[in-house]
Amino acid sequence: MGSETQPRFGDVAHLGHVELLTPTPNESLAFFTSVVGLHETARAGESVYLRAWGDYERHTLKLTAHRTSGLGHMGLRVRDDDTLHRLVAGLEAHGSRGNWIDDPAHGRAYSFQTPDGHAVELYWETQRFIATPDLATAFKNLPQRYVPRGIAPRRLDHLNILAREVPPTRQFFQARLGLRLTEQIVYDDGTETGAWLSATNKSYDVAITKDRSDARGRLHHFTYAMDSREDVLRAADVLRDAGIPIETGPHKHTIGQTFFLYCFEPGGNRFEIGSGGYLILDPDWKPVVWTEAERAKGQAWGLQTVSTFHTHGTPPIEST
Amino acid sequence: MGSETQPRFGDVAHLGHVELLTPTPNESLAFFTSVVGLHETARAGESVYLRAWGDYERHTLKLTAHRTSGLGHMGLRVRDDDTLHRLVAGLEAHGSRGNWIDDPAHGRAYSFQTPDGHAVELYWETQRFIATPDLATAFKNLPQRYVPRGIAPRRLDHLNILAREVPPTRQFFQARLGLRLTEQIVYDDGTETGAWLSATNKSYDVAITKDRSDARGRLHHFTYAMDSREDVLRAADVLRDAGIPIETGPHKHTIGQTFFLYCFEPGGNRFEIGSGGYLILDPDWKPVVWTEAERAKGQAWGLQTVSTFHTHGTPPIEST
Amino acid sequence: MGSETQPRFGDVAHLGHVELLTPTPNESLAFFTSVVGLHETARAGESVYLRAWGDYERHTLKLTAHRTSGLGHMGLRVRDDDTLHRLVAGLEAHGSRGNWIDDPAHGRAYSFQTPDGHAVELYWETQRFIATPDLATAFKNLPQRYVPRGIAPRRLDHLNILAREVPPTRQFFQARLGLRLTEQIVYDDGTETGAWLSATNKSYDVAITKDRSDARGRLHHFTYAMDSREDVLRAADVLRDAGIPIETGPHKHTIGQTFFLYCFEPGGNRFEIGSGGYLILDPDWKPVVWTEAERAKGQAWGLQTVSTFHTHGTPPIEST
Amino acid sequence: MGSETQPRFGDVAHLGHVELLTPTPNESLAFFTSVVGLHETARAGESVYLRAWGDYERHTLKLTAHRTSGLGHMGLRVRDDDTLHRLVAGLEAHGSRGNWIDDPAHGRAYSFQTPDGHAVELYWETQRFIATPDLATAFKNLPQRYVPRGIAPRRLDHLNILAREVPPTRQFFQARLGLRLTEQIVYDDGTETGAWLSATNKSYDVAITKDRSDARGRLHHFTYAMDSREDVLRAADVLRDAGIPIETGPHKHTIGQTFFLYCFEPGGNRFEIGSGGYLILDPDWKPVVWTEAERAKGQAWGLQTVSTFHTHGTPPIEST
Repeated sequence: MGSETQPRFGDVAHLGHVELLTPTPNESLAFFTSVVGLHETARAGESVYLRAWGDYERHTLKLTAHRTSGLGHMGLRVRDDDTLHRLVAGLEAHGSRGNWIDDPAHGRAYSFQTPDGHAVELYWETQRFIATPDLATAFKNLPQRYVPRGIAPRRLDHLNILAREVPPTRQFFQARLGLRLTEQIVYDDGTETGAWLSATNKSYDVAITKDRSDARGRLHHFTYAMDSREDVLRAADVLRDAGIPIETGPHKHTIGQTFFLYCFEPGGNRFEIGSGGYLILDPDWKPVVWTEAERAKGQAWGLQTVSTFHTHGTPPIEST
Repeated sequence: MGSETQPRFGDVAHLGHVELLTPTPNESLAFFTSVVGLHETARAGESVYLRAWGDYERHTLKLTAHRTSGLGHMGLRVRDDDTLHRLVAGLEAHGSRGNWIDDPAHGRAYSFQTPDGHAVELYWETQRFIATPDLATAFKNLPQRYVPRGIAPRRLDHLNILAREVPPTRQFFQARLGLRLTEQIVYDDGTETGAWLSATNKSYDVAITKDRSDARGRLHHFTYAMDSREDVLRAADVLRDAGIPIETGPHKHTIGQTFFLYCFEPGGNRFEIGSGGYLILDPDWKPVVWTEAERAKGQAWGLQTVSTFHTHGTPPIEST
Repeated sequence: MGSETQPRFGDVAHLGHVELLTPTPNESLAFFTSVVGLHETARAGESVYLRAWGDYERHTLKLTAHRTSGLGHMGLRVRDDDTLHRLVAGLEAHGSRGNWIDDPAHGRAYSFQTPDGHAVELYWETQRFIATPDLATAFKNLPQRYVPRGIAPRRLDHLNILAREVPPTRQFFQARLGLRLTEQIVYDDGTETGAWLSATNKSYDVAITKDRSDARGRLHHFTYAMDSREDVLRAADVLRDAGIPIETGPHKHTIGQTFFLYCFEPGGNRFEIGSGGYLILDPDWKPVVWTEAERAKGQAWGLQTVSTFHTHGTPPIEST
Repeated sequence: MGSETQPRFGDVAHLGHVELLTPTPNESLAFFTSVVGLHETARAGESVYLRAWGDYERHTLKLTAHRTSGLGHMGLRVRDDDTLHRLVAGLEAHGSRGNWIDDPAHGRAYSFQTPDGHAVELYWETQRFIATPDLATAFKNLPQRYVPRGIAPRRLDHLNILAREVPPTRQFFQARLGLRLTEQIVYDDGTETGAWLSATNKSYDVAITKDRSDARGRLHHFTYAMDSREDVLRAADVLRDAGIPIETGPHKHTIGQTFFLYCFEPGGNRFEIGSGGYLILDPDWKPVVWTEAERAKGQAWGLQTVSTFHTHGTPPIEST
């Protein structure tokens, strides 16, 4: 296997979609449409496909009825078709036992697992959202007009998975998929408890944090992005009046500089509304390493990380 | 020459710096430090080096005393050293007559010209800004703390050059440097009057608009970015009270979706404070083409483009 | 007549509502509900009653089908019932020929005219909005929850009337109603072309600008307020995609410091979305007088006032 | 004593200034000028006089060196000179034993105490800030230009005092000074633990919360206001990098709807940076009463009130 199979930064273009499992599909759907304000674009089998007003693909959230909560799979769109085959060749050369599938929602894809057991689909073919006349916009560089319903985030932003051991899964995203490590938490005893990786100029697209349970393949949270921090504050009002408890925030993460709030969708999965962060332009970015002492200082302005943040993942441990 | 020399998107990592020529160096320096709030990091010869609080390199603006206003050169930082040599091989294979220089401000660089005559430096070696204790920050993922002086933009954002003919210069950035064409203006008679190109996920990093004069190698404007649109509005107050006339804005560009204001620095060069824009995640982005009729509608919310925007470039025509 | 009848600042508590005449009632209603996002609370005769989510009364906009556009009347709520009778005694002692009416929408009121012929209702009794369960909010200090529909302003803010001569109408609001003059435009020849008056700590609640036509009793515009300037920018996007042309703005008024945008509702009346301004805490505020030369500099950041701003009032001249 | 001596809402125009005692005057002064960004306007005796860029009087903060921290006095400016004498007559008729003083910083004033022992000065004569040319502004309706130094709040906003029993002090502000009760906390056993009162259309200007210690006349905090919530978030960054711990926030108060953050100035007094709140236009506003159960839900978005908020006042108990 030649050097051509070595993934480079940019081979994975972006996080395309998240398939979320929910044991309460009706309630979850009502939450994501009425409260969050996502748009339904299709239904098939046990799944409903949703997207935010600024998402260019036909779906960024696939909501699937299931016995448990958790992550169905994450979809990562690649740079082009050649890159897809090159990445798959590398994955297989390094022992990945995935398989090609034809996902009716976006096309041909290669399905495999992270070392911790999260399902991933790599894909190039996709289906773009074409606005119907009532959603068309004078701003031709946007896929549709802004529709102020509920929180109305602009786009899917990132995904945070849990892993029993962070390093192997983190190295997998770096070595096999070309993502860039941007920030890390390394405790005094050398344990890596968190890693943030990016496929773009954003400060992160995929985060991996340590699962303190014995479970595998769990989800910590996924995130849709607002245009401004003021929008996140407004979202907090919407959640409050919708009777959705906010787990923590709004506040600013020290890591990634993103302004955040977390809540739980009715199916039990943690959901984040975020904004901001910083752009990484430096092609030679040195990962920022945070110590145990620094983490003990809490978030950016001193808010202590809530204990549920260290324990709650989906599916819950008892159902794994 | 094999396919290895074909530039790809991502080979140029980002716009690194702008060298600005000014016939009034003291006044320009006072403007960029006291009013804009940039930080001086070095002086050498006829030049003063400046950066914004969020810029990771030691300088993003090189202010050089000169007989005229205008662009000294633009610096484009590349992905890595191999990429630098690969791009240079491609440039030379296609007739560029550049030369290697040792720029003391950042290191070895390849200096050449765009088809319209703008000087460009491609470089990989650089010098990072290391904060002195008074500027150090608890936010380790930032190069220094935020310092609220004057407008206090976060970072250099983009550059807009003028070209007698847009297509050759636009194609040069695409074919020789791997930038992505994101938006274009094409008039009814087929004349391309503007092109926006990106090296990153930002909606543009370099813009090329048509010079309606016979001059070559001119500058339309360059831009530093604020974190929010509210910050741009505040910047307008700062400019007003500093006695700096605002040419146009604050308003939103239809193209690129950026929120903008334009003014002239004392040396006569147009300077923009901006915020926003959209991220391009789609690796297969189709350039958005704007027609003459669409442009006639003005900016995003109807503001007509001011006439000086179509005529004023630097250096002024009489001095070229 | 004793000193008890001298109005004081605070006797008029606030602008309560605006009755707007429209020759296109269906289109106007669709605009104010779907695009602006006001809530309908009642219908009676030729009128529909509307309010914003933060308005405490059952209506702040009474939309009335009529042969022409223009102002039906403005409602001014007073401090208490005694104050109402005291103000009426003063009005009548100075020649006002008004009459008591029983407005079913809010209760007993005294109806009269300004010197330029605008109908005014002074009232104390009112009807408060009581939220239905679907609109109830955990924020008990608000009349209902925030509902993100269309622009979704928080509350009615102010009214700008036209007057053939500004001084008599301005003095009437000061001497007969106790409003405070906060800012003025006085041209070089001594003509007062604009006056801003306040009943509250806001920089203005009623503005009077010179009608350059021979018409009387005309409306220049009325305004609903957003919580932030960012919200006004978002409103501009909503108007653009709804196909409603923006007359001018978003920009900041030098006078009153409010951030504004103007458009025309389908009936032809000018409508403003605004935010900001400054609070006047000084009980001995000296009116700020702007000269002709200062006005020639345009709005806060240099935007020239559009010519229609000096000519368009409702009803249009040909229909008066 | 006739009805003329009954105070009315509006008789007290606004909170004019706060005299703050500090045992570390140099450090406190450095904090309020360099970090907060207030402007020094005078010095006399043990005091330094400061104001924010938007304050119209020559000082809104009098910083006085003292053995302890705490409140020196609060200054309340009244509607006019007649009102001053009328309020004093009422105070004396109800047993206040104050005295007239000539405060060189603003003029003649009546000095007295609240039932809990906080010193108050009522005054009409004042000294306005006149901007020197370097601080003059094109925005003639502002006292000076905006100067972006440190946090740079616009103006003094409110004061929160502690009282062993809330009701008598709250009733004093209502009955003797005409302030309006806007919100209250009443526990299940009937104990009133907090009261918010307003002299203006703001949701509060003076707050009184229960001192759980036996001390008297203590200060809970005082507050300067920013123009936007985004500005409060930026202030949090400035405090973090200045090494000033944030006690709690940024977050939104359920009561008053203000967006807040709290820290301690070097002398030990609690200091708030805030923004927002709602305007009260209703002249017949019914106080909002919050129950013990409602308070247990924490602040607006669920943040629990920190325990120090219930215990820390100045001066500390051991020094009283």
